[in-house]
Amino acid sequence: MDILNVDLGTRSYPILIAAGALGREEVFRQHLPARDLLVVTDTTVAPLYLPVLRESLGKRRIVEVLLPEGEVHKTLANAARVLDVLVANRFARDCAVVALGGGVVGDLAGFVAACYQRGVALVHVPTTLLAQVDSAVGGKTGVNHAGGKNLIGAFHQPVLVVIDTRTLATLPPRELRAGLAEVIKYALICEAELFEWLEAHLDELLAGEPAALEHVIRRSCAIKAAVVGRDEREQRERALLNLGHTFGHAVESATGYREWLHGEAIGAGLTMAAAMSRDSGHLAASDAERVRRLVERAGLPTRIRSVTPAAALEHMRIDKKVLGGQLRLVLLRRVGEAFVTADYPQAALTATLTAHFG
Amino acid sequence: MDILNVDLGTRSYPILIAAGALGREEVFRQHLPARDLLVVTDTTVAPLYLPVLRESLGKRRIVEVLLPEGEVHKTLANAARVLDVLVANRFARDCAVVALGGGVVGDLAGFVAACYQRGVALVHVPTTLLAQVDSAVGGKTGVNHAGGKNLIGAFHQPVLVVIDTRTLATLPPRELRAGLAEVIKYALICEAELFEWLEAHLDELLAGEPAALEHVIRRSCAIKAAVVGRDEREQRERALLNLGHTFGHAVESATGYREWLHGEAIGAGLTMAAAMSRDSGHLAASDAERVRRLVERAGLPTRIRSVTPAAALEHMRIDKKVLGGQLRLVLLRRVGEAFVTADYPQAALTATLTAHFG
Repeated sequence: MDILNVDLGTRSYPILIAAGALGREEVFRQHLPARDLLVVTDTTVAPLYLPVLRESLGKRRIVEVLLPEGEVHKTLANAARVLDVLVANRFARDCAVVALGGGVVGDLAGFVAACYQRGVALVHVPTTLLAQVDSAVGGKTGVNHAGGKNLIGAFHQPVLVVIDTRTLATLPPRELRAGLAEVIKYALICEAELFEWLEAHLDELLAGEPAALEHVIRRSCAIKAAVVGRDEREQRERALLNLGHTFGHAVESATGYREWLHGEAIGAGLTMAAAMSRDSGHLAASDAERVRRLVERAGLPTRIRSVTPAAALEHMRIDKKVLGGQLRLVLLRRVGEAFVTADYPQAALTATLTAHFG
Repeated sequence: MDILNVDLGTRSYPILIAAGALGREEVFRQHLPARDLLVVTDTTVAPLYLPVLRESLGKRRIVEVLLPEGEVHKTLANAARVLDVLVANRFARDCAVVALGGGVVGDLAGFVAACYQRGVALVHVPTTLLAQVDSAVGGKTGVNHAGGKNLIGAFHQPVLVVIDTRTLATLPPRELRAGLAEVIKYALICEAELFEWLEAHLDELLAGEPAALEHVIRRSCAIKAAVVGRDEREQRERALLNLGHTFGHAVESATGYREWLHGEAIGAGLTMAAAMSRDSGHLAASDAERVRRLVERAGLPTRIRSVTPAAALEHMRIDKKVLGGQLRLVLLRRVGEAFVTADYPQAALTATLTAHFG
């Protein structure tokens, strides 16, 4: 079993990575003292992994909530329903919320854990590649608003993250590809070697080879744990993890969270961030092309025809990275180095939107 | 102008106390940099103090939201409506939420500020005695759930608290009395001299004499600022500030937040906590009687006839202070010294409930 640590003083926590971790009773016995557990999952994941998790959790009081699947259900109304279940079962402050599933389940359950009684323990058991490499680590929780992605939320770190890489065996190929977008993102912002590794081994990942998947999960979690440990609240360096996300969130919210998976929107967003970096004179054209090509090979979209450039811009303006009326963007200086700026030619943004939308 | 500081490292903030503070433009110019402000208030306070606040805020973009008045409106549904206003106006992360009003407005607006974009700046401008001495300081925010008081919330410290003692001139006498309950609480947990001062000067407070009111506001804020500075997240000493609140919250939630003001419920709760302390052998009967008498003189209830002892117990069980299935209570050792315990005779609790409910 691999153990990574997210170092946040008294709120530090381990990320446990192993094939079959979900079925190992000692993992939960050793790391999760709470007796009252609310397991939040969705209707797709529940039949696959809820029985084995239930078994591993042992003799505790377990209440289960099943959400409908999909980003469109990551709403404040559904968070309120989960809170109702906690209250109806009279769960106390020493309970824990266990999120079993992908990013939607993790973000929503995490927000519920952040708000219930002003904060109870949270355990992430991510079952998608995207959740394993990204959303389960770092403490960002939240729900969507019709006006924008993740506009309502909280920073709330988990007490434990359990990654069972074997759950990827049942992951639909489209979801696997979506997860790769975030892996490409980590490589782009700080690890050129990982980008080269992805160029060389993408086919193994797409074929679901366990060793290749475990490698990118470990690298991604290690990068994220280090960044979050240095800048939990995104006041500096953590903002780099949003590479491709301002474009990507606009794709998601302009299409009502229905057309594209989060990771697919991020794939397109990475392509746009690279093109924008090139058009504003920061990135070599050949590197922008390497990004576009890897995203395309991963089976992810590189442009979004169903959204007009004007609509995309409108949705970008409500992004959380707007400050002083200025939209800040994460751009690339080279593969493996990103930076945040609000100082870019408006023409480059217009050109990027025009080239990639509509 | 009196300035107290809540010392929380990088999140420290000042509490400014002065008659007429609300009308002093420099207070907001010096301490509140945000250009986009959402002012949350209620329909009672708005006609009284919104014009002068608006004037003092100067040339900024100001959006106003008026809530209906009363604890019954401190709901997640109303918080969602305020969040909708922030999104609809495309407020960015560098905006500020300004809570102008009593505890209900402050708690709800504070929770909104905690959740919007995972946290934006919050300014408290409390206009009731209860909010000035208690709820505007310390960072507890939240909304009620039908199943219990403040069950949904967050710790989110303000960046500034502005207390204009002149607003108490328009406060209904019933609200003034309710605020005194929290002042009595501070005296009971850690300042016997303040309790004696209250016994000697209660009539001046009830008559609304500004000097007397300013004295108790300063003392209360100083005590709360010190406790919060030492234990922001209520892991130790801050729990003492809940003296009377487990009983009081049960009163509020058993009566649907409609019959009693929060401070009135706390008045009854303090009487019950004192009686329970006496019945479990910790407090002299004469001191329990001093508590009951001061609460009664303050015009606050000392027993609640409309709730049965059984219903009260049921509502106490969902309290946030339940841990390991055990209901912890704050009890008194003497006037000026409180402690938290889950180790008390069940018979004393039963006797207290029977004597004070139904």
